[in-house]
Amino acid sequence: MGWAIALHGGAGDIPLSLPQERRQPREAALRHCLQIGVEALKANKPPLDVVELVVRELENIPVFNAGKGSVLTSSGTVEMEACIMDGTKRCGAVSGLTTVVNPISLARLVMENTPHIYLAFDGAEAFAREQGVETVDSSNFITQENIERLKQAKEANRVQIDYTQPIQKDVKEEKPEADGGLVNKMVGRIGDTPIIGAGTYANNLCAVSATGKGEAIIRSTAARDVAALMEFKGVSLKEAAAYVVEEGTPKGNVGLVAVSATGEVTMSFNTTGMFRACATEDGYWEIGIWPSDVQK
Amino acid sequence: MGWAIALHGGAGDIPLSLPQERRQPREAALRHCLQIGVEALKANKPPLDVVELVVRELENIPVFNAGKGSVLTSSGTVEMEACIMDGTKRCGAVSGLTTVVNPISLARLVMENTPHIYLAFDGAEAFAREQGVETVDSSNFITQENIERLKQAKEANRVQIDYTQPIQKDVKEEKPEADGGLVNKMVGRIGDTPIIGAGTYANNLCAVSATGKGEAIIRSTAARDVAALMEFKGVSLKEAAAYVVEEGTPKGNVGLVAVSATGEVTMSFNTTGMFRACATEDGYWEIGIWPSDVQK
Repeated sequence: MGWAIALHGGAGDIPLSLPQERRQPREAALRHCLQIGVEALKANKPPLDVVELVVRELENIPVFNAGKGSVLTSSGTVEMEACIMDGTKRCGAVSGLTTVVNPISLARLVMENTPHIYLAFDGAEAFAREQGVETVDSSNFITQENIERLKQAKEANRVQIDYTQPIQKDVKEEKPEADGGLVNKMVGRIGDTPIIGAGTYANNLCAVSATGKGEAIIRSTAARDVAALMEFKGVSLKEAAAYVVEEGTPKGNVGLVAVSATGEVTMSFNTTGMFRACATEDGYWEIGIWPSDVQK
Repeated sequence: MGWAIALHGGAGDIPLSLPQERRQPREAALRHCLQIGVEALKANKPPLDVVELVVRELENIPVFNAGKGSVLTSSGTVEMEACIMDGTKRCGAVSGLTTVVNPISLARLVMENTPHIYLAFDGAEAFAREQGVETVDSSNFITQENIERLKQAKEANRVQIDYTQPIQKDVKEEKPEADGGLVNKMVGRIGDTPIIGAGTYANNLCAVSATGKGEAIIRSTAARDVAALMEFKGVSLKEAAAYVVEEGTPKGNVGLVAVSATGEVTMSFNTTGMFRACATEDGYWEIGIWPSDVQK
């Protein structure tokens, strides 16, 4: 019993051969974000503040594909999404942002300052200006690495889960590293992140964030299903999460992190890896990418 | 066992005093749409074709607020949404359409002709042009009645569920008739319709369409919850729908129509009324607005 926090930086086909220079900054980012969250919880900050704080940090770090470092559409543009929800089911979501530095903060403002849950594209951008949140030119979210990834996806003529490991054309078994976003997605495509019940869900029993192939997560209402299994079947958080990842979603597509109202935490995935971190009030601490590399 | 079909034209605070000239065209429209669906089923048309056919008809009829007759945003514009899903969980959704005559057909094209589930705003409009679906100037979706409704909502300074009964300022007990859309909504607001699990859901057990206050439906994942109760708790379609409407969603906000894979049908609401119609293969037939006016 007590607080619990879990976060992710995406799930997918992250190759076990991920070079140290790509692995190290991501592990450091996970550790940094977890530390910020744990410190805020220890200082008794309200849970929503902690969530916003940690996600802002994930957005500001270019090695994960929220905010700066977002995947590019087939037109080479950035369209960012975010979602926030609390245990009373209050929630806010945004899609199609092109200039907002921290989409998570705008999602919270939708929740708190509008009669709506979800604003998208031009209307969301107009709301951002009305609320005075920080904006920058869209080019600021685009990294050289993401331009390269889009180029590769276009060359392969496919929409692919984001990767940071360039495809080595001469090494057949080399797989792309995935972390949630969909490179070369169509302009206007909405993923699982802003969909209550898909990428994001919270109620009085638990809070869940799913990641991976957005379409698979939407179709399987992954985040709501974890909570629904607890609510309607009476299973534990870990059992519910395990069921969704093992039975409820297609293999290779989905990961999720979740905490329960009683302070449990679970992080499950059916992909090769998931950039993840969690901690609980009793001192448990975990950072990992693959199933076997858990650092405690 | 056999086919079953259910459709709705919105749920809300529909006054029992709804004048005959407003009631009659809506009942006629429900009957017309149901007949089209039943005839198509009897002709063994594929279920998705039947769904698309019936929803196109609902969109073309101005007395319901899909397609022509859509509610207006606070800027007086139309932003249309639609969603389609089948028992294998294939699905497609669109939001923010301003020129597409039949959003449901575009949702189906997203499902069938893209790697995505959900396209919105400019990207969805661009896809519509690429696919060659029928488009018209946005002004064609706007009815005089909806201009009046927006004016009234603005005068009352509120975002309100759509109504066709003008508020009579001198009659305090007069309530607006609601039918799903949110008049005076912010530009860019996304409702429950395109959200898989909220306004729309289908799997191998059932198919559900919810209506009413979009935000309440999103928050309660109403459509998925009907299916989740069947899947995780083993209850019947009717029990699941009754639970969601009685316990799972706030009173006055939500209605839903649902069919099961075994040919059952249910139509439940916790609002004053819901424009609704259903039929089953064994000859059952029902059209109604309020709880007590059921025509069989």
